[in-house]
Amino acid sequence: MNAILTLPVVGQGLYDITRRVRQIVDEAHVTEGLITLFVRHTSASLLIQENAAPEAREDLERWMNRLVPENDPLYTHNDEGPDDMPAHIKSMLTAVSLSIPLMGGAMALGTWQGIFLWEHRHSRRSREVIVSVLGGRE
Amino acid sequence: MNAILTLPVVGQGLYDITRRVRQIVDEAHVTEGLITLFVRHTSASLLIQENAAPEAREDLERWMNRLVPENDPLYTHNDEGPDDMPAHIKSMLTAVSLSIPLMGGAMALGTWQGIFLWEHRHSRRSREVIVSVLGGRE
Amino acid sequence: MNAILTLPVVGQGLYDITRRVRQIVDEAHVTEGLITLFVRHTSASLLIQENAAPEAREDLERWMNRLVPENDPLYTHNDEGPDDMPAHIKSMLTAVSLSIPLMGGAMALGTWQGIFLWEHRHSRRSREVIVSVLGGRE
Repeated sequence: MNAILTLPVVGQGLYDITRRVRQIVDEAHVTEGLITLFVRHTSASLLIQENAAPEAREDLERWMNRLVPENDPLYTHNDEGPDDMPAHIKSMLTAVSLSIPLMGGAMALGTWQGIFLWEHRHSRRSREVIVSVLGGRE
Repeated sequence: MNAILTLPVVGQGLYDITRRVRQIVDEAHVTEGLITLFVRHTSASLLIQENAAPEAREDLERWMNRLVPENDPLYTHNDEGPDDMPAHIKSMLTAVSLSIPLMGGAMALGTWQGIFLWEHRHSRRSREVIVSVLGGRE
Repeated sequence: MNAILTLPVVGQGLYDITRRVRQIVDEAHVTEGLITLFVRHTSASLLIQENAAPEAREDLERWMNRLVPENDPLYTHNDEGPDDMPAHIKSMLTAVSLSIPLMGGAMALGTWQGIFLWEHRHSRRSREVIVSVLGGRE
């Protein structure tokens, strides 16, 4: 079973989508299996990280912005502005797809793991993530 | 169903393998499911990125080559030449496996997403990628 | 079928878990399919890399430690000490989940590929990895 999630975004940042994904898992009624997330873009990505401390996530973003700054003279591709090429590079360094086991009807995330959509562009308004559920009722 | 793709390469670069993967998906006749790509090497990797603008891909390669240059005095492992250790590091920072949902009998890639084999060595001539298809006809 | 592996660790480093994973695959008696590994933490990650040369793995670790040093003034999140934020960043740059095809009853790893748990903290004593097996006997 595959479901398309349309996720609103407002500028760069980490958007917690754990609850939205959990809802799809609940509706699928799969006891034992695997879900896979896939982002349909080349300038946004997926991340499973710290769900409690917002400062940890802010540090991740600031570290990434320092490693991949805008206006680097290396870039030749700037069709869509100074955040275009950094967005592709940040996507390259993180995940386009992620899989999480389903056990006892729920995602087997660790205590501190949240699922995030990472928006790397300034002006996009929504993104699509596909949630693919494999498995059965054991 | 698992199929092994043998892919010719000539030196470093991003090789578009979307068409080769699509061919396997078409032959599998799976309507709804998931495919997973796996590269059987530690000095080549997989990437889903911008399929239209070649300059964007060239920027990705040049950015990566600057972050992970050859002849870095940090390296102690040089058994196979100056491109040996950079190839392992670039592989570490990108993907060894990638999953893409199958919907309506086709890969649910976004409009601008292509699938690439990223060759990190100068002198390899071919690489193996396994395409694993899971799912059924719904 | 999902199995939880509890893996002992002693400080930072790459721990070869290939044999432990192979044991679970053998017990699952799946001929053709896919296994997926998932690490239930945000400060440890998964890596498939060079299984023969220990110097190659040491170079990977030293390169990563140079890119993501402790005590970087950028970090604001230091709740659990100077290795806290670097561990999150290293996890972000590597994999939380990895998939490997099963062919002929065995993982289709390349000759030089080993599976590693990468511990990024100094003082953790054990970590959990879930091994998810999908497929059947063909």
